[in-house]
Amino acid sequence: MNRVPSLDDIRSAHLRILPYINRTPVLTSGQLNRIYGCSLFFKCENFQKTGSFKFRGAVNAVLQLNEEQKKGGVVTHSSGNHAAALSLAARMNGIGAYIVMPETSPDVKKKAVAGYGAGITFCKPGQAQREAACRELMNEKKATLIHPYDNFNVICGQGTASLELLEEVKDLDVVVAPVGGGGLLGGTSCCVKGTDGRIRVLGAEPVNANDAWKSFKTGKLTPSVNPLTIADGLLTSLSELTFNIIRNHSDDIITVSEKSIIESMKLIWERMKIIAEPSSATVLAAVGENPGQFRGKRIGLIISGGNVDLTRLPF
Amino acid sequence: MNRVPSLDDIRSAHLRILPYINRTPVLTSGQLNRIYGCSLFFKCENFQKTGSFKFRGAVNAVLQLNEEQKKGGVVTHSSGNHAAALSLAARMNGIGAYIVMPETSPDVKKKAVAGYGAGITFCKPGQAQREAACRELMNEKKATLIHPYDNFNVICGQGTASLELLEEVKDLDVVVAPVGGGGLLGGTSCCVKGTDGRIRVLGAEPVNANDAWKSFKTGKLTPSVNPLTIADGLLTSLSELTFNIIRNHSDDIITVSEKSIIESMKLIWERMKIIAEPSSATVLAAVGENPGQFRGKRIGLIISGGNVDLTRLPF
Repeated sequence: MNRVPSLDDIRSAHLRILPYINRTPVLTSGQLNRIYGCSLFFKCENFQKTGSFKFRGAVNAVLQLNEEQKKGGVVTHSSGNHAAALSLAARMNGIGAYIVMPETSPDVKKKAVAGYGAGITFCKPGQAQREAACRELMNEKKATLIHPYDNFNVICGQGTASLELLEEVKDLDVVVAPVGGGGLLGGTSCCVKGTDGRIRVLGAEPVNANDAWKSFKTGKLTPSVNPLTIADGLLTSLSELTFNIIRNHSDDIITVSEKSIIESMKLIWERMKIIAEPSSATVLAAVGENPGQFRGKRIGLIISGGNVDLTRLPF
Repeated sequence: MNRVPSLDDIRSAHLRILPYINRTPVLTSGQLNRIYGCSLFFKCENFQKTGSFKFRGAVNAVLQLNEEQKKGGVVTHSSGNHAAALSLAARMNGIGAYIVMPETSPDVKKKAVAGYGAGITFCKPGQAQREAACRELMNEKKATLIHPYDNFNVICGQGTASLELLEEVKDLDVVVAPVGGGGLLGGTSCCVKGTDGRIRVLGAEPVNANDAWKSFKTGKLTPSVNPLTIADGLLTSLSELTFNIIRNHSDDIITVSEKSIIESMKLIWERMKIIAEPSSATVLAAVGENPGQFRGKRIGLIISGGNVDLTRLPF
C-alpha cells in the first residue's frame, strides 16, 4: 500500500493501538522557554514503550496482520529502536518475531532485542547482506516483513504521536520532528496538515546525514552515502514512499551540526531531567540554530526516544 | 516554632505554595515493577522547580515572612538544592537572598545559585565558619535565617509532595523517602500518617551516613561524623526537631550501600528515562535490598531531585 495516510487513517491507527501504547506526557520548561525565546512543548516519546516512538508504528502494523500472517510471524532488519519495538509488539500479540542484525552490533542492542523474546539472525554488515537474510526468513518461516518506515501502517502509527500532541496543546505554530527514514516525519506531516494546514511542519536532520534535506531541496530522492552522525537513529535514508509524503506535506528540512545536537541533548538532560537520545535532540538544535525563525512561536517538538548507552555519553 | 506539623498544616502549606510550584507527575514503569515484584509509584520531584523538592519548603517559608522580614531578605548556608530553592523562592517574591557557601564549592553550584539572582558569601569550609557567616548576614542585613530542615514551615512544605502522591495514587501500602536532615522524611511522615495510619513510612539512608538509622534505633540523636557517600544531598544529620518527628511518625529507617545506590540510579535512568540524583536512588535501593519486605506491595517512592553533574557520573 503506497498511499499517503489521511488524518482518518491516523485516527483509526490511534484507536487500534491505544490499548498497547503509553499515552506519553507533553512537558514544558520555563527555563528553556526563556533561553530560546519561544514556547516549547516536548512530546516525550522517550517514555513510550521500548523507549521510542517506534513502538507506535510497529504495533499498528502487527495488529493489521491476518491470521495466516500471524502464524508466520514478523521479520525486520534493524539493530535499533524498531527492532526492540517490533519484538515487543509481536510478543504482546503472541506472534513470533525474527530480527536480522549485523553480527557487529553492540552487545547492549543484542541483549535488548533478545530481552523482548525475539529470535535474532546475525548477518555480515551491509545492506545487501541484511536484505538477503531477511528474504531467507520470509521464505523459510513465511514471516511478514515489517519495514522500519517504508510501510503505510508503520507511518500511520508514527503519526499518532502528533495526534496526541495537537489534542493536548492548542494553537501551535510549528511542529518539528527528527527525520531519518522519514516514517516519523511522514506520519507527523500527514497528521498535522490534516488537522490544521496553517501549522508548519519541519524535519530536523543532522547535516552529516542530510539526504532528506538534499532530496527535499532538489526534488529528487538522494540517499546518503556513508553518513556519520552521533544521531544513530537518523542514519537511514528516505524511501520513495516517505519522500513522496514529505515533499508534499512538510514545509522544510532544517539541518543541524553535531556540536549543536550534543549541546541540545545536554541542555534537555540538565534542564528537563529527562533522558533524550541524540536523534531527539536534533529538534531542539533546529530551534537553537535558527532563533529568528522561531522567536515568540509556540513549537511542538517530538522527542523521539531515550535509548542511550549511559557509559558512552558525548559530554 | 518547634511543634509537629499536622495534616492540616501541610494542607494549608499546599494551598499557599500551589501558585508557585510544579505539580510533579507520578510515573510508573512496568519493567521496574516486574524486576522488583511490586507496584512502584515514583513521585518525581526531580521535575520540581530548581530540580528538587526543596523548593516546596523554601517557598512555603518565604511566603510566611512578615513585611519587616521581607525587607531584610533571607539567608541560609547550603551549597546544594536548598540554596537554589531558596534563591528562586526569594526572587519570585521580590525579596533578597543571601547564601553562605564554602569557597571550596564546585563552580557548577556557585553558578546555579548566582543564576537565580542570590548574593553569595563565601566562607572557609566547616560548620562553625558557615554559621558565623550566616550570623553576620543576619545582623548586618537583618536577614531571616531559613534553615534547610530545622524549620517548621520548611517541613510542612516538604510534606506537600506526599499530599499530591496520596491524592493521585490510592491504596498505597508504603511510602519511602530519602532521609538526610529529615525535612523531607519528617513532612512525609506527618502527611502520610495524618492521612492514613495504616500506610507505612520508611526513610532510606546511605549506610555511610547513617545518623538517622542510629538515632532511630537507639532513641538518642546521634549526628554523623564525617559521612562520605555519593548521595550528596544526604550528608546532613537530623536536628532535634526532625528527629522528634521521625521517631514518632516514621516506621523504620532502611540503610543502603553505595553500590546499590549507584545501580538503582542507573536503573532509573535506563528504564524510566528520567534523571534522578544519587540521593533519590536510595529509595529504590531500599526496595531492592529488601525484596521480602516489599514483594507484592504498592509503594510510593519520593524521587527527591535530579541535580547531577553530567560530566561526573558514577557509571
